[in-house]
Amino acid sequence: MNKAAVLYGERDLRVEDRQVPVPQHREVLVEVRSVGICGSDVHYYEHGRIGDFVVRAPMVLGHEASGVVAGLGPGASKHRVGDRVALEPGVPCLACLECRTGHYNLCRDVSFFATPPVDGALAQYVTIHEDFAFTLPGSVSADAGAMLEPLSVGLWACEKARVSVGARVAVAGAGPIGAVVGLVARMAGAAEVVVSDPVAARRERAASLGATSTVDPAEGGLATACAEADVFFDCSGHPGAIDDGIHAVRPHGVAVLIGMCPEPRSLIPLARVQAREIWVTGTFRYANTYPRAVALAASGRVDLESLVDRRFSLEETEKALNCSSADPSVLKAVVQVSKP
Amino acid sequence: MNKAAVLYGERDLRVEDRQVPVPQHREVLVEVRSVGICGSDVHYYEHGRIGDFVVRAPMVLGHEASGVVAGLGPGASKHRVGDRVALEPGVPCLACLECRTGHYNLCRDVSFFATPPVDGALAQYVTIHEDFAFTLPGSVSADAGAMLEPLSVGLWACEKARVSVGARVAVAGAGPIGAVVGLVARMAGAAEVVVSDPVAARRERAASLGATSTVDPAEGGLATACAEADVFFDCSGHPGAIDDGIHAVRPHGVAVLIGMCPEPRSLIPLARVQAREIWVTGTFRYANTYPRAVALAASGRVDLESLVDRRFSLEETEKALNCSSADPSVLKAVVQVSKP
Amino acid sequence: MNKAAVLYGERDLRVEDRQVPVPQHREVLVEVRSVGICGSDVHYYEHGRIGDFVVRAPMVLGHEASGVVAGLGPGASKHRVGDRVALEPGVPCLACLECRTGHYNLCRDVSFFATPPVDGALAQYVTIHEDFAFTLPGSVSADAGAMLEPLSVGLWACEKARVSVGARVAVAGAGPIGAVVGLVARMAGAAEVVVSDPVAARRERAASLGATSTVDPAEGGLATACAEADVFFDCSGHPGAIDDGIHAVRPHGVAVLIGMCPEPRSLIPLARVQAREIWVTGTFRYANTYPRAVALAASGRVDLESLVDRRFSLEETEKALNCSSADPSVLKAVVQVSKP
Amino acid sequence: MNKAAVLYGERDLRVEDRQVPVPQHREVLVEVRSVGICGSDVHYYEHGRIGDFVVRAPMVLGHEASGVVAGLGPGASKHRVGDRVALEPGVPCLACLECRTGHYNLCRDVSFFATPPVDGALAQYVTIHEDFAFTLPGSVSADAGAMLEPLSVGLWACEKARVSVGARVAVAGAGPIGAVVGLVARMAGAAEVVVSDPVAARRERAASLGATSTVDPAEGGLATACAEADVFFDCSGHPGAIDDGIHAVRPHGVAVLIGMCPEPRSLIPLARVQAREIWVTGTFRYANTYPRAVALAASGRVDLESLVDRRFSLEETEKALNCSSADPSVLKAVVQVSKP
Repeated sequence: MNKAAVLYGERDLRVEDRQVPVPQHREVLVEVRSVGICGSDVHYYEHGRIGDFVVRAPMVLGHEASGVVAGLGPGASKHRVGDRVALEPGVPCLACLECRTGHYNLCRDVSFFATPPVDGALAQYVTIHEDFAFTLPGSVSADAGAMLEPLSVGLWACEKARVSVGARVAVAGAGPIGAVVGLVARMAGAAEVVVSDPVAARRERAASLGATSTVDPAEGGLATACAEADVFFDCSGHPGAIDDGIHAVRPHGVAVLIGMCPEPRSLIPLARVQAREIWVTGTFRYANTYPRAVALAASGRVDLESLVDRRFSLEETEKALNCSSADPSVLKAVVQVSKP
Repeated sequence: MNKAAVLYGERDLRVEDRQVPVPQHREVLVEVRSVGICGSDVHYYEHGRIGDFVVRAPMVLGHEASGVVAGLGPGASKHRVGDRVALEPGVPCLACLECRTGHYNLCRDVSFFATPPVDGALAQYVTIHEDFAFTLPGSVSADAGAMLEPLSVGLWACEKARVSVGARVAVAGAGPIGAVVGLVARMAGAAEVVVSDPVAARRERAASLGATSTVDPAEGGLATACAEADVFFDCSGHPGAIDDGIHAVRPHGVAVLIGMCPEPRSLIPLARVQAREIWVTGTFRYANTYPRAVALAASGRVDLESLVDRRFSLEETEKALNCSSADPSVLKAVVQVSKP
Repeated sequence: MNKAAVLYGERDLRVEDRQVPVPQHREVLVEVRSVGICGSDVHYYEHGRIGDFVVRAPMVLGHEASGVVAGLGPGASKHRVGDRVALEPGVPCLACLECRTGHYNLCRDVSFFATPPVDGALAQYVTIHEDFAFTLPGSVSADAGAMLEPLSVGLWACEKARVSVGARVAVAGAGPIGAVVGLVARMAGAAEVVVSDPVAARRERAASLGATSTVDPAEGGLATACAEADVFFDCSGHPGAIDDGIHAVRPHGVAVLIGMCPEPRSLIPLARVQAREIWVTGTFRYANTYPRAVALAASGRVDLESLVDRRFSLEETEKALNCSSADPSVLKAVVQVSKP
Repeated sequence: MNKAAVLYGERDLRVEDRQVPVPQHREVLVEVRSVGICGSDVHYYEHGRIGDFVVRAPMVLGHEASGVVAGLGPGASKHRVGDRVALEPGVPCLACLECRTGHYNLCRDVSFFATPPVDGALAQYVTIHEDFAFTLPGSVSADAGAMLEPLSVGLWACEKARVSVGARVAVAGAGPIGAVVGLVARMAGAAEVVVSDPVAARRERAASLGATSTVDPAEGGLATACAEADVFFDCSGHPGAIDDGIHAVRPHGVAVLIGMCPEPRSLIPLARVQAREIWVTGTFRYANTYPRAVALAASGRVDLESLVDRRFSLEETEKALNCSSADPSVLKAVVQVSKP
């Protein structure tokens, strides 16, 4: 028996029994412990789709997961039953040009948890290629292990931007991603991390996680609060915030757009980008971040538990989705699928 | 006496006598030989301004220049009278953060030929800091020396894009800049250079300068003719062309926007930029290109004379401006201010 | 029947029949056409080993190969029987950290043709993973297809060094690798390529392949003939040449050491490296070069046939090895295993 | 009157009166507050030279300095009298190729405090170009201001190595530079910083400053204690330590050699560098680090006071030099030239 949180359509989530999956060649079977609720889970739950990704058949949600190895498929040799692991949710083909050049996050044949039609990790058992399960040291909790996924988003963004020691960093959006990006920017040595968000509770939370100052866009934006920033991270997906943030960037600086823009095309201050030779890019998931994310958690450099505000059981998954959506003071909800 | 081509306002160009300038500390006096006509010269002539740069007082045009050293200011020791030189038209402050970090093209205190209120080089005599006059070997003609400026634009763009040997390169716009960018991309080892332009004569010219194929945007754009390009260069400034070109870029590829966009903000396919982690940037002039440009011309690797279609005298400057504007088959007109 | 050139020990090469291999999962069976003789083949033949790589059991030589697809293993779908292909000789694990970060040439589990104990390609038939067989256009001959391997060495070295348009490049050693590196540096836009070699015939050959000048080390080295070079490539493996070349490099320049050094440790001018902040690295094979190498050959930008001086049959493999070793005027010998 | 600590020859240091210098064009006159004693000061004091830099005439020592603006030369406008400033000790020409490309630390015409024949900062008054005096916020003490110089060494080294968040870093040598490099590596997000030094007191000090572990080379080196490090920093200048450290570096990793090697040539494990494609470079001072160093100190991210063990008056300079040399438990001695 394998209880799972399955999305049948808009706001139609059912916790039901499924088959326990059988690990294939070099896969491991994992008994899931903790799964973080991501904005994408909420979006699928509320809209049944994200852009071109449409939930056409019932799909298990969840992709920020940790667990315990419960079985080994043929050829799997990196783990033993009982190993505590964090799961990198996307398994790429490893053979295409993107994979071979180190950009496996851009692989077109990736299989990614909870992206239609692939089932996610909000289940008692999942299987995954052994190379994408990372052993957790005893000091890292199951909840923290699940948080390695949002941490990876922040690591990837900061790597793209090459945040350097002493940098000035502007961040738009203080939701979970904005908070994590600010956290990683501080870890990368940023001297200043200025976060803008219209919601006071989120600004406070960002400040508690390492932002050196925060700003309400209604009272002046990043372009004034963080002028001549080395790096701007958009974690909002709002064209207005992107416009403001690009105006904050110094000549030859970098703007990394993480928040998904709702439309295929957006109006951006291109003349400014040209006149200042600013580099603009986006991020799509991450690659090769888990080894470093585990090392950081193990070293005690980052307190991932502090990201988690609310905890739910698997049966309460719908509550977890709703509170993630409705309550701006909740940075991150975790579903504790099982306990040790 | 120092005859010069002075712009008094929209379509009001007068060739008149000015004072011969006196070279200041570490400057050289240069007797000008050849000056290329750039699109910006035409734009100032036709509109009296480019964006925020407004011609409020009479201004000498021209910034693509070569000449002969005719005098030395105090402290100038790098050249001798009689040296043939190409002139890098922008002299930055060399002290600000941009200058100190190697991005002197982004210096806010730059003095650039023919950018209001600084006079340009369409004059018999100009002065320039000795470090921005580059000695030409005998094998490089005065006209070719003037063409080192557009060559610099291409070198800078290809350096930003890191065009590599064997690359696939898409170029929008086959005016002078598009032609030079294609030429440099080929020199950088591009296996394919696909150029789009609505004007047949320009496409033919681009092909003669090294483009491996050309495309009429009306009959399908770069996104089909050069799919999965490593690099896209926009040399058109048209949002539609930029949109097309960005759709041609492979995951993790680069789009360098050289053509000045007419509006402060433009609609770009940001969702595509994000999903493919494309890097987008612009260029603003160039930095540290002249030494390499001279080396290339000296080595015979590039035939800069082949860019020049028409030659005029200083008195004919207005004709040079008009033919550059009206005749799409003219890639580059040069004003031969003086002859040896 | 599968005739192959098998090395049994020092100077003990036998052409003998072996089993035709059976293509495994996603592999293709290839009827070999042309195989270039590499210095490593000669070294195994003459010494039975290269450093720690010892030929302990009979091993087929050869790793610069082209051929025709003659059969498909289960799951292979990228090629059809009859496709003309070049073979990238090393198939990495694609799963380790090196592979996942784009450095698959550093994979510790690579299977590389003619590296003990893996058999090479000097045989009528070999098998290879379909992703490492690259389709050749009709314009690229079988011999040229084999030369994509040394071309890859040059592409990789120039990519590491970021040879830019207009660069000054110093090369030590005008053997096959030195010649190819010079060729690629020219393709990358180098304005100057200065090659040093003690053998006049090799210097002449390098000049015919694009070196702008050559120098006999006995009559002054690169440090004088190519002072302030942007890049130095060592293709000799001689500490004296490396020392000379590093002294040629400008501040902040790059030295890429391709020639294998005979000893684990070598004396290098480290104080110079420090005072000039020179970057020193080496190359070990190459990664992701074949797609670009094929594109270059297809575009006609590089004449790979011009590298080949002598051609032999499979039965004459020993002659091919001996002439590659003994005759400095022979840049590259090719064994034509079969003909169309 | 301008009391200064002047080196007349080996172990011949005299505190004597000199003329108060007059600030030239764009220079400021600075009343010196604190000057850190660097290993180079000690070396000049003990040997009268460092390699080719020989003290031929009496020279004021000291280059890690902070002070208060006491006067303005003509054209100086960035500071006001009374401003508290840290001094970047090297003023480059800003016009040569190195300066124009952002590598002004490699300028051949630099004027650097206490490098023969240029006088240093161990004096009551010095002058410096206004762009190389950086305003200190009130929260940064004069002693901390002097420590921005060693901090700059660490920033530059970590920038070269691109220490990333979660990295594993090996450091040889726990003197002042090793300690600061470890400190900056931690600020840059390194998960592990392993420091080797034969002196127990220094290892303890490194641990107190952020090293995650330390190792005595006699009991096994970095190659075992920190295998597969992303980055190795040599801060010892000892060939044996460099050899050990390079063996610690992962494939495609980086080795940055900061400690000056005593001989022009050193034996390094080049075959390893090649087989792993390791990047090796050195550092020579630093460029563009002061703005970030000030930002870090201002933000409270780094406690620079904690580097200072002993404080002396200007008259006690010789004691400061001797204790820096003799007492391994003293990381950094500061001469407090004047007090507010």
